[in-house]
Amino acid sequence: MLPATTALLILELAGVLAFAINGAMTAIRTAHLDIVGIITLGMITALGGGFIRDILLDDLPPVTFLDWRFLGTAALGGLIAFLLSKRLDRLIRPINVLDAAGLGLFAVTGTLKGFEFGLGVTQSVIIGGITAVGGGTLRDVLLREIPAILHSGLYLIPALVAASLTALVVTADLRLVPWTVVAAAICFAIRMVGVRYDLNAPRPRL
Amino acid sequence: MLPATTALLILELAGVLAFAINGAMTAIRTAHLDIVGIITLGMITALGGGFIRDILLDDLPPVTFLDWRFLGTAALGGLIAFLLSKRLDRLIRPINVLDAAGLGLFAVTGTLKGFEFGLGVTQSVIIGGITAVGGGTLRDVLLREIPAILHSGLYLIPALVAASLTALVVTADLRLVPWTVVAAAICFAIRMVGVRYDLNAPRPRL
Amino acid sequence: MLPATTALLILELAGVLAFAINGAMTAIRTAHLDIVGIITLGMITALGGGFIRDILLDDLPPVTFLDWRFLGTAALGGLIAFLLSKRLDRLIRPINVLDAAGLGLFAVTGTLKGFEFGLGVTQSVIIGGITAVGGGTLRDVLLREIPAILHSGLYLIPALVAASLTALVVTADLRLVPWTVVAAAICFAIRMVGVRYDLNAPRPRL
Repeated sequence: MLPATTALLILELAGVLAFAINGAMTAIRTAHLDIVGIITLGMITALGGGFIRDILLDDLPPVTFLDWRFLGTAALGGLIAFLLSKRLDRLIRPINVLDAAGLGLFAVTGTLKGFEFGLGVTQSVIIGGITAVGGGTLRDVLLREIPAILHSGLYLIPALVAASLTALVVTADLRLVPWTVVAAAICFAIRMVGVRYDLNAPRPRL
Repeated sequence: MLPATTALLILELAGVLAFAINGAMTAIRTAHLDIVGIITLGMITALGGGFIRDILLDDLPPVTFLDWRFLGTAALGGLIAFLLSKRLDRLIRPINVLDAAGLGLFAVTGTLKGFEFGLGVTQSVIIGGITAVGGGTLRDVLLREIPAILHSGLYLIPALVAASLTALVVTADLRLVPWTVVAAAICFAIRMVGVRYDLNAPRPRL
Repeated sequence: MLPATTALLILELAGVLAFAINGAMTAIRTAHLDIVGIITLGMITALGGGFIRDILLDDLPPVTFLDWRFLGTAALGGLIAFLLSKRLDRLIRPINVLDAAGLGLFAVTGTLKGFEFGLGVTQSVIIGGITAVGGGTLRDVLLREIPAILHSGLYLIPALVAASLTALVVTADLRLVPWTVVAAAICFAIRMVGVRYDLNAPRPRL
């Protein structure tokens, strides 16, 4: 049994906040939306991955929908992005940093929830990956961009690395905190290196 | 307890019909699809919002899928749009009117279903908004347009207004009919004013 | 009662393999993705239709997610496409053939699952059609193309033909194998004729 400790709740809320600000900033930067569109896209980016996870795990209605702390944090993130938008004329860097942070945090919490619902190791790792990339994929589809899971080699891979490390932590019965935080940090680091040097996995030679 | 009265069923079927004709007309106008594509897009626009609502509420299979009256009404709407398409050379106006009508009707019925399934006020209002904008969002994504929830300030707002008024009707224990019809009409009016004057919520200054 | 015979399992796995190679090839050809993107899109194309079916049928978590044979077959298909990509410089023909094969196979197995879960004839046929076109629709949305269900007249129609024939087999209590294989083959044939001669259903005259 995995206790839903306060530490894990904080990790998930931190992921929600990171993705909400990220989604809202992307809305400001890419599509010049108004405040409603900005907060909406922030909330979808923040909560979408968890919704997909909970649909697949049959944990409905999604806990992130029922619990006001998640809804409130997601809305807050959108609002923060809107209020800061005047100063954030170069948004690319924080957008990528927040996306990488959310990616690692959701890979960890998604994988833990997979184990909590009795899935095997492979399925828990995959559900962790889906949780991590789900919100950003919805964000990209709504903005008519090809999702990062498809075109950016080091997006799904760091998420799966963090999910696999989390599975290792669970199966080896290590302490969840701090080890899952380390897993999220490794995902973050790989992703940021990938963004910095524009790295990709091998492509087919056509 | 909210009785599923005949009046509410009629409201929901009216919303299905409005969205089905709207989606099918959009298919005719935007993408020059054949009859299969037209009816398909009409049915997705009409039933999509209710499907998303029922997934989140864990009311599966969706009642609008099991009940032939919803499937039939949605298919009928698509067929009507196809048959009338010769005369409808200027489709923008009816497309917007039908979309606004469906928006208000689904915001009301979605919110009522949220209460029926035991959600709190905030969650019921949000589920009403999702029901209202869900079908149109699927329609726009399939046609590769940025969804109205993101770029059109007065789309989600009137839906949330109607949902909030419906929540007020429920919590104040007023008679569902006519008050929810009034809520849907207010949503319709706000949306049409927004379309007419191209109004938006505040945008960030970049 | 429909026994989940080995034959039906093989049909469904064949559909998964066909769609996985198809999705991965489309990723190679359309978007020049790296190996992660290719396998991801292959798996989404292969498993997406079944996921949507299982969400609507409330059979969660999806059996194709829990069962390693489906996950493995889907990943294998993506890998095959990646390894063969050097030789496949003209990918259009196999892409269409595999898509048509998956379409027929999933229309059959989706319809059978609808009956298995107690749906009526109409709903079982529709769920068969959704299963058949779901994965390809997700593939097209992620690649920012208008989905084949909308623009290609003979895509949803052959799927619904196979689903209807499957419903006939079930209600007339015929032997599932070989008759459902015949239904899948008829779907495949109609689709390939449609692709060859670029056939569509009637369009509205504007």
